[in-house]
Amino acid sequence: MRTPARLKTCSIFTKQVKLLTLSTKNKIINDPIYGFITIKDPLIYELINHPYFQRLRRISQLGLTYLVYPGAYHTRFHHAIGAMHLMGRAIYTLRQKGQEISSEEERGVLIAILLHDIGHGPFSHALEHTLIPGVSHEALSLKIMEELNLEYNGSLDLAIDIFTNNYSKAYLHQLISSQLDMDRLDYLRRDSFYSGVTEGSVNSERLLTMLNVKDDQLVVDSKGIYSVEKFLVARRLMYWQVYMHKTVISAEFMLVNILKRAKYLAAQGIALDGPATLKHFLKADYTWNDFEENPEILKKFLSLDDFDIMSGIKEWVNNKDVLLSDLSSRIINRDLLKIRLQEKPFAKELSHKMAEGIRDQYGFKQGEEHYMLIIDKVKNHAYNKKKGHINLLYKDGRISDISTAADQMTINALSEPVERHFICFPRELRHLL
Amino acid sequence: MRTPARLKTCSIFTKQVKLLTLSTKNKIINDPIYGFITIKDPLIYELINHPYFQRLRRISQLGLTYLVYPGAYHTRFHHAIGAMHLMGRAIYTLRQKGQEISSEEERGVLIAILLHDIGHGPFSHALEHTLIPGVSHEALSLKIMEELNLEYNGSLDLAIDIFTNNYSKAYLHQLISSQLDMDRLDYLRRDSFYSGVTEGSVNSERLLTMLNVKDDQLVVDSKGIYSVEKFLVARRLMYWQVYMHKTVISAEFMLVNILKRAKYLAAQGIALDGPATLKHFLKADYTWNDFEENPEILKKFLSLDDFDIMSGIKEWVNNKDVLLSDLSSRIINRDLLKIRLQEKPFAKELSHKMAEGIRDQYGFKQGEEHYMLIIDKVKNHAYNKKKGHINLLYKDGRISDISTAADQMTINALSEPVERHFICFPRELRHLL
Amino acid sequence: MRTPARLKTCSIFTKQVKLLTLSTKNKIINDPIYGFITIKDPLIYELINHPYFQRLRRISQLGLTYLVYPGAYHTRFHHAIGAMHLMGRAIYTLRQKGQEISSEEERGVLIAILLHDIGHGPFSHALEHTLIPGVSHEALSLKIMEELNLEYNGSLDLAIDIFTNNYSKAYLHQLISSQLDMDRLDYLRRDSFYSGVTEGSVNSERLLTMLNVKDDQLVVDSKGIYSVEKFLVARRLMYWQVYMHKTVISAEFMLVNILKRAKYLAAQGIALDGPATLKHFLKADYTWNDFEENPEILKKFLSLDDFDIMSGIKEWVNNKDVLLSDLSSRIINRDLLKIRLQEKPFAKELSHKMAEGIRDQYGFKQGEEHYMLIIDKVKNHAYNKKKGHINLLYKDGRISDISTAADQMTINALSEPVERHFICFPRELRHLL
Amino acid sequence: MRTPARLKTCSIFTKQVKLLTLSTKNKIINDPIYGFITIKDPLIYELINHPYFQRLRRISQLGLTYLVYPGAYHTRFHHAIGAMHLMGRAIYTLRQKGQEISSEEERGVLIAILLHDIGHGPFSHALEHTLIPGVSHEALSLKIMEELNLEYNGSLDLAIDIFTNNYSKAYLHQLISSQLDMDRLDYLRRDSFYSGVTEGSVNSERLLTMLNVKDDQLVVDSKGIYSVEKFLVARRLMYWQVYMHKTVISAEFMLVNILKRAKYLAAQGIALDGPATLKHFLKADYTWNDFEENPEILKKFLSLDDFDIMSGIKEWVNNKDVLLSDLSSRIINRDLLKIRLQEKPFAKELSHKMAEGIRDQYGFKQGEEHYMLIIDKVKNHAYNKKKGHINLLYKDGRISDISTAADQMTINALSEPVERHFICFPRELRHLL
Repeated sequence: MRTPARLKTCSIFTKQVKLLTLSTKNKIINDPIYGFITIKDPLIYELINHPYFQRLRRISQLGLTYLVYPGAYHTRFHHAIGAMHLMGRAIYTLRQKGQEISSEEERGVLIAILLHDIGHGPFSHALEHTLIPGVSHEALSLKIMEELNLEYNGSLDLAIDIFTNNYSKAYLHQLISSQLDMDRLDYLRRDSFYSGVTEGSVNSERLLTMLNVKDDQLVVDSKGIYSVEKFLVARRLMYWQVYMHKTVISAEFMLVNILKRAKYLAAQGIALDGPATLKHFLKADYTWNDFEENPEILKKFLSLDDFDIMSGIKEWVNNKDVLLSDLSSRIINRDLLKIRLQEKPFAKELSHKMAEGIRDQYGFKQGEEHYMLIIDKVKNHAYNKKKGHINLLYKDGRISDISTAADQMTINALSEPVERHFICFPRELRHLL
Repeated sequence: MRTPARLKTCSIFTKQVKLLTLSTKNKIINDPIYGFITIKDPLIYELINHPYFQRLRRISQLGLTYLVYPGAYHTRFHHAIGAMHLMGRAIYTLRQKGQEISSEEERGVLIAILLHDIGHGPFSHALEHTLIPGVSHEALSLKIMEELNLEYNGSLDLAIDIFTNNYSKAYLHQLISSQLDMDRLDYLRRDSFYSGVTEGSVNSERLLTMLNVKDDQLVVDSKGIYSVEKFLVARRLMYWQVYMHKTVISAEFMLVNILKRAKYLAAQGIALDGPATLKHFLKADYTWNDFEENPEILKKFLSLDDFDIMSGIKEWVNNKDVLLSDLSSRIINRDLLKIRLQEKPFAKELSHKMAEGIRDQYGFKQGEEHYMLIIDKVKNHAYNKKKGHINLLYKDGRISDISTAADQMTINALSEPVERHFICFPRELRHLL
Repeated sequence: MRTPARLKTCSIFTKQVKLLTLSTKNKIINDPIYGFITIKDPLIYELINHPYFQRLRRISQLGLTYLVYPGAYHTRFHHAIGAMHLMGRAIYTLRQKGQEISSEEERGVLIAILLHDIGHGPFSHALEHTLIPGVSHEALSLKIMEELNLEYNGSLDLAIDIFTNNYSKAYLHQLISSQLDMDRLDYLRRDSFYSGVTEGSVNSERLLTMLNVKDDQLVVDSKGIYSVEKFLVARRLMYWQVYMHKTVISAEFMLVNILKRAKYLAAQGIALDGPATLKHFLKADYTWNDFEENPEILKKFLSLDDFDIMSGIKEWVNNKDVLLSDLSSRIINRDLLKIRLQEKPFAKELSHKMAEGIRDQYGFKQGEEHYMLIIDKVKNHAYNKKKGHINLLYKDGRISDISTAADQMTINALSEPVERHFICFPRELRHLL
Repeated sequence: MRTPARLKTCSIFTKQVKLLTLSTKNKIINDPIYGFITIKDPLIYELINHPYFQRLRRISQLGLTYLVYPGAYHTRFHHAIGAMHLMGRAIYTLRQKGQEISSEEERGVLIAILLHDIGHGPFSHALEHTLIPGVSHEALSLKIMEELNLEYNGSLDLAIDIFTNNYSKAYLHQLISSQLDMDRLDYLRRDSFYSGVTEGSVNSERLLTMLNVKDDQLVVDSKGIYSVEKFLVARRLMYWQVYMHKTVISAEFMLVNILKRAKYLAAQGIALDGPATLKHFLKADYTWNDFEENPEILKKFLSLDDFDIMSGIKEWVNNKDVLLSDLSSRIINRDLLKIRLQEKPFAKELSHKMAEGIRDQYGFKQGEEHYMLIIDKVKNHAYNKKKGHINLLYKDGRISDISTAADQMTINALSEPVERHFICFPRELRHLL
């Protein structure tokens, strides 16, 4: 066997062949939610086939939520394609309503939504601030888009401008990121579909039909008011019933603690089993600056996915460190910490008693108990006016924030933040509550 | 930190607590297909929580099918629960029709269907004959049931008798394994649901309502004839459109070849990266006898799952062996071998030319080309009378095979086997076709 | 041809045969929403087959709503069966939670919900106060139940007690009539299904699972709070988007005016074409007293349905009275009066100008214009605490009204009444607005 | 009150206003099956609003099928709109595949499918050969289109050419009427949806995606073979499970006999109650010639609908003629004749015995018993090659009939006609069977 180099040549050749093929026919993807999703643009098809995007097949959309909702096992890959599909429908609607959107702009906004989450690391939100603290997935998404822009000779310029809100038509950016964007529309419907929590379902088709543009801003035709209200209620419901389901909170905070413990051990110079890439990130503590200066780090990051994390955790079940081993085993066998939620913060005394109880029970040293005693809070805003408006467009051309519309006590109610405090602890200490 | 032993104690305590809790209320699982699935029996709840069963959360139902149908990413865990749900409905129907089924029998048949696939290894069928050749998943399922039977003091005796068809009421076994069993009913509907191939959907509710028992044999009320026909057509459609979709065939045979290559390299004493358990099975070549004699092997097997395989493959992308590396990279980045299907076998000359072309292109040694040139066939029988009958029960008490019923040309047609030959090869050699 | 009497004999014979048949097997009804609905109780099957109940096949559930939503063409028959199905599921759930419900009580509550709307006349709510002013459909439902009770020798005693809230277990009545009853659960889901307004859909299964009983009162398990919120939002949405859709308001008030005009003409002694029964009710002006004293009136009422009304209106298209003819033609050909809705009452001047304009345009006499100029208001309360509570049951046994629960700003908002004023007028006068 | 003439003027004015409105925005119809149906063409919107088309709101799609499937209560109006929607999707697909279809052709084919069933009389197929024997609904549809063409100054010329297969692009006609047309695609899906017989559901979206054109003929891309197979199986299933459900056969033949009896009585000069238009058609016996010569007859026909029939039958319950009264009462109260189906014809002796029994039981004269003793047969062809082909288009450009494709035993089976003989008789005579 001689030259691996030859293989590389082949794969470039392959790329050209694909582009040729595509020009004559569309590519179709089956989606259990929308039916057929058609991909007409060869560049978009190229991007979907790119290893960076294919990686999203191995990043779950909802982290460990499947421990509560076994069907919620879908991936970021599928969500990104779905959001792009909705974007295509939105473009269609807006053009029907007289908005001029060029085919370059269409391509740009489709690419921007397709890649909006490409910077997500394994287990998405759960591990975002643990593996590479201080580096957000949005910043990484942009960095990866720029990387791809180089590879495709500037074809993503417009997509990047739209993504970063540096393009004149603000509504294109708002379709990607606002209080009522294609991202939310797809994930609410998709997460509802796969989890089986049907109340969270959003009628994306109806909402899309109501979209409009006024003075380059995304607005909703006034008769869509009840659909928007329903969308916000669905969002709130999904938040508390799925995303912040108490068992999911417990599992994901345990996952964070496992990684924290592994990083701690790695920092102590203790050898850990597991995939090479994962071990690399456990030892390093990269900052954004590192990503900027050393392109190899992004490349490494782009080979990291859920499989690395789970594979590592599976190895750590047999680790000598009792804490790492016990937490790992609990995740693998779904033997989770117990959790309580309440409106008010938990009393200091409770946390002291619990900490003591855990140290006593397991023989942990001071401070180690916090791997098994998680006290924190979660917060949700179904409609956050501070982050942007959902504006209604009336027949007379007037626009106004949805919460000021007549009869919108409900929407006002949904604008208030809701907060919940929680405590996670080993089941055998629940007599201390 | 003192004794890991203490942790063990806790987890036993936990088990007892759960049993107590359960006696007072049911456990509910959300299913996107059936809605709510209620679990009333504490023993069944225990079994679902058992690490052996939780492992099925990490075994995909359809292997690499998600490379074609991105939604088809569901697990054996979910299928097993779903099939058990349908079994509960079947029991309900049969009791309504006057069949006496004791609560012990109900528990037995529910457990048997719940555990019928527990012996599946990673990537289910795809790797069944590669990782541990000669050991079927059915044999392993039985072995694991026996193991659990020991742990639960014989509570699974009846389940095992039903599973192995050693129980007087044959229809209970037939509900688990026959031409029209709860396994098929669930997987057809579930695979159709998640893949989005809606034509493959089966109206499980209607079929269940038509089930009946005559002389201890499972039969279908005669008016259910069109529903059975529709079930068989759906099965055939799913077979060719999903299970044996040409791209899926290519991907799964590539997966097999990756494992074969890894085993070959391991046998040469070449060190491979990857999870410890996987490496163990690559080096060993266990027979059924080994499983019988050494209980540790089963235990090891039960810690193996899809994550180990994918994690291994991800490491092998960087392996020095060009073959292993190239195939691994192709799977990870979805750059699959091209495939052609046809009714007749492919000509010998073609396979010779292809083999030569590959050796030439990559510089492979004689024989190595077969990792990238796969020539084989697939076969399907929508209704296989040789393996058992679907019998109709007429109002006058008469029963007869569905294919002998009037107007059943369609079913006769579905009884014929269908065969397809295929060839997989690198895309750049397609001029040789 | 001799004796019609003989035919009567036959039909009694028929009734007995049916009862015999039923004792050995269940009856199944296909429902597009719930799948199969099984009827096990022979008495209930008898009641469904009774001409009084079969009449509901000819009473639309949503009146003229199909002029806006063409799919919303379903009948009271289907709704009554659906609500009974949900009741069966509710009973099942409550028994699972330890509530003792005897088979007599089950039959009683099933019959009560089945017959709760049997007193509805043609076009349900729209004509309720026009055809027989001062006689409510609830009063008629009760009267018909009593009639059936005589026919079935007191078998409906318990059903009537539950229906009239004279039975000790108040929750049985509340399942039929309260802020969260089986009636609402079915009609919201059914009306949403048939109209295609999917946002109004209610997850009846999940809500049912959350039902419970505390101190003989119907309550909802506290974790069902978001489902109840979703239910109330759906109800509000259906109200404004379907039941009070502006075009539906216009059509139904026109229908009322047609009947008013026909009654006016009949009172003048002017002969009208149309079905005999309809003409009978146009001429008479029955009070509740008449129903009490003359059993023939109820019988006549029970032969009246949507077909009579539409058939009459079709005849009246050719009536000499211009008003009756024009309004009738507009309904038949869907050429409806234009309508405007607003929060505040319309100005007196507008109504004067409109009245004048209509008189002028059509040559109507003073007062006649009000058949074509409708000024009124509609009002909705998604959750009306004055009419009863939805109470949550907490794990500690405490119960409290849902609007006092934490985080229920939304529910408070939904408790406020919403009012809309409207004006309907001929399209050609809209310049007067 | 003076001039009805003025009202006429207004309604003309109205028509113009609508056209103006439409030019600036689309009209949307909610469909429970397809979601939103958008109507862009003002002429099509006009046609939908035309009284002739609005009449279809009062013609049920499935006649008396709702007596078996209570949900199957939808109208021809809804089906026509649905079929037009699918046509729009088909046009979209074919254009995507490179077919040039002008906007005139699009309008033509949309109008042709919209109006393809406009000639249906009350209860569609059931009464087609009873009310006006010898005049088919297709002939009437064409006549009505020609009428509308006059009214709209020749705007329907192309639609009529396509409808009558006199247009060069044969595939446009085939989309309206062939073995796989938009009519069938919509009605199978719609009837399945409303009846709840989900096995009959057809994935119209997938089938549409597979449509193509070769040499101006409609074909199906070869990879759509399983979808076509599924479509044919669904069609067969709907035929026997819904359209020819034995209870539906009994009800519809009874309906025919009621009308026959009423016509017989009318011919005897006996006065009957009921709507004027219905009585007109009972007395007359119009031929096609009459329709050609006297335009008033068509106009009268166009005011006839299901309401007239049911209203008449309701009146006839009280008719002195025992036969008419008994049959009418049976339909209204769903007390149907019993029916038996079998493969072979029924023996002559049985029919003699039954006839005698009925005469004996009811005191009927010789010949009269045939109103209550119906002996006939029904026949179905899921795929009828004699009436046209479903052709597959292979990648190499070759086309061939689907039944000659490899692996199509099933389709061959579906090409065979299936026949069933039946007998309907009063329940009390079933001991004679």
